[in-house]
Amino acid sequence: MPVTTDVSEGLGVLTLDNPNQRNALSTQAMNEIIAGLQNLSEAESAGCIIINARGPVFSSGHDLREMIGRGIEEKHSIFELCNVMMETIQQLRQPVIAAVQGPAMAAGCQLVATCDMAIASDSAVFSTPGVKIGLFCSTPMVAVTRAIGRKRALQMLLTGEPVSAATAADWGLINEVVSPESLDLRVRELGKQVSAASSMTLRVGKQAFYKQADLPQPEAYAEMAEVMATNALADDAQEGMGAFLEKRTPVWRNH
Amino acid sequence: MPVTTDVSEGLGVLTLDNPNQRNALSTQAMNEIIAGLQNLSEAESAGCIIINARGPVFSSGHDLREMIGRGIEEKHSIFELCNVMMETIQQLRQPVIAAVQGPAMAAGCQLVATCDMAIASDSAVFSTPGVKIGLFCSTPMVAVTRAIGRKRALQMLLTGEPVSAATAADWGLINEVVSPESLDLRVRELGKQVSAASSMTLRVGKQAFYKQADLPQPEAYAEMAEVMATNALADDAQEGMGAFLEKRTPVWRNH
Amino acid sequence: MPVTTDVSEGLGVLTLDNPNQRNALSTQAMNEIIAGLQNLSEAESAGCIIINARGPVFSSGHDLREMIGRGIEEKHSIFELCNVMMETIQQLRQPVIAAVQGPAMAAGCQLVATCDMAIASDSAVFSTPGVKIGLFCSTPMVAVTRAIGRKRALQMLLTGEPVSAATAADWGLINEVVSPESLDLRVRELGKQVSAASSMTLRVGKQAFYKQADLPQPEAYAEMAEVMATNALADDAQEGMGAFLEKRTPVWRNH
Repeated sequence: MPVTTDVSEGLGVLTLDNPNQRNALSTQAMNEIIAGLQNLSEAESAGCIIINARGPVFSSGHDLREMIGRGIEEKHSIFELCNVMMETIQQLRQPVIAAVQGPAMAAGCQLVATCDMAIASDSAVFSTPGVKIGLFCSTPMVAVTRAIGRKRALQMLLTGEPVSAATAADWGLINEVVSPESLDLRVRELGKQVSAASSMTLRVGKQAFYKQADLPQPEAYAEMAEVMATNALADDAQEGMGAFLEKRTPVWRNH
Repeated sequence: MPVTTDVSEGLGVLTLDNPNQRNALSTQAMNEIIAGLQNLSEAESAGCIIINARGPVFSSGHDLREMIGRGIEEKHSIFELCNVMMETIQQLRQPVIAAVQGPAMAAGCQLVATCDMAIASDSAVFSTPGVKIGLFCSTPMVAVTRAIGRKRALQMLLTGEPVSAATAADWGLINEVVSPESLDLRVRELGKQVSAASSMTLRVGKQAFYKQADLPQPEAYAEMAEVMATNALADDAQEGMGAFLEKRTPVWRNH
Repeated sequence: MPVTTDVSEGLGVLTLDNPNQRNALSTQAMNEIIAGLQNLSEAESAGCIIINARGPVFSSGHDLREMIGRGIEEKHSIFELCNVMMETIQQLRQPVIAAVQGPAMAAGCQLVATCDMAIASDSAVFSTPGVKIGLFCSTPMVAVTRAIGRKRALQMLLTGEPVSAATAADWGLINEVVSPESLDLRVRELGKQVSAASSMTLRVGKQAFYKQADLPQPEAYAEMAEVMATNALADDAQEGMGAFLEKRTPVWRNH
């Protein structure tokens, strides 16, 4: 089974667990990732979700054996499934953090760019190498361009060359670089920090984030004023603000 | 009175002047900021506007006491007023520079992100900590996402943790970091440099900037070709280009 | 003649070759650049196109002598011609790399920001100085804002001051800084690296890049899934993936 899941200490963890196939995103793997994320999301105790990987490679991207031959409709359905996987990550109620221990390539790089936050060990590298095998990384570039801007995205896309974890952090593709030994601990620490918040607040905020990011500024402001007004009336906001003004620790209802 | 204004040496200065309330953006403060900015903008001698603050904190954001209890309409009107304040900054005919001497939090951070330029002392920090009190910083994130990109915005929004002035400059949230002693001088110097330009040119350019920033590229180019053609015919452009070609100092009409 | 072109070693090179006029983008120069790029693009052996310049200045931008006096329609047609030149660069089937040996100003800075990639020598500087002569750089800012973000774009636009090549690289306006002696060699090396790919793949990928960059994310993903499905069926993709799986070097048809 290419994917495993686990919930412990308030964190849901989805692990790409097919090192022999370099954690390739086969149709089976993508279906399991989507189902695994949805299951983790429903676990009430999972305040934050981590996507990590076992083996030397984070993910090599699509399974090329599924790309040889076959008709256009089958191929289109593979890329549409991949789009659904990326949408799922951004539509989950919990924040999703990528923990990148090795090379993240093509759709694997897109997966990292799509998570809400990402931490990598300094043994990770990031690439969109499709150009070298005749299949330009056109769906990965949607996420990569939006993370690092046009010139740097084109450099990755046109050369296919990997960038280091340090460069990825400098460009805003990931949030932080740590040593390989401390990756798991640091990601769990960040996950726990994030999930200390009210889960209602995280759900409302994450959904609002992706809504406003694609809107022209005036429309974004109009929508967000409504989101904040509704958010402010919620029990957890009234509790949180009250606790802050009274200098006490808030108690979330977490609904 | 939470806000004071002053015009001197060609610069309009609006000061958040309620240190005892950490320069909170209460309804009263926001109304005074809007009115103060509009008054400064009408002063013919104010070529550039500076927003600074007195006390240890730049601004703590909304006044939470206004957020406890009450109905949805009253809350909605507070966030709409905040949107109007942000729009006002970007619609003023003059460039607006934030001078940030201390923590800029939530809507205070948004205020900095909304100004055309920002300089901070190394004692400033920037945060969107609403997630910690149950009220996600959904309106601040409109400005913050557009300044620093998605991954870094989500890090600030989901953790609520402050980033240093140096990090804020590295990410493009602010333009420059200086020592606390030199903040005022450096901001006034930048303000004078900017206001040496024709005020017509600054007005046309600033308005055009925010128009093109939200458009798809082809539409942006079509609009800007018209803006430049009209701009080129204006007296100050003809004077500026003539002076440049004749290697003399231009004399602006400043209309 | 203000522009020369050459094809050698698989690279098309367009040279701004009017150093006495600081490689100004006069109407004549822009028409020659458009025609020169289209001719280079049709050369089957040109896998990548380089835009460089002779003399101490890369380009000073529009020819101000064409901006003095005259009517609105003539001015509008100059800026529309400039828009066509910029569109042409992004619509060419080959990647375009700017090689910047000296100051790139106003529309010259826009030209660099518009190329797919850019390498500069450390003697280059970048500026949008129109504000100083009464003619705000409103068309250049379309490209510059999309490359470096709002705060930094406004700093360049409102002050008109140059930024160094190192700063331009830090901000993502260019991809790399090298010594003046190594500029030509490094740019040709990058050009050859890029043009080792299938020209079909580069054409499809470049066209898709600019299409997705301006779309809201969900529409971008829908379009790119179609692009990738079609791309995957192409001969060069089947060859490239087959070669990869068989660990051999692909042979491109380059159609």
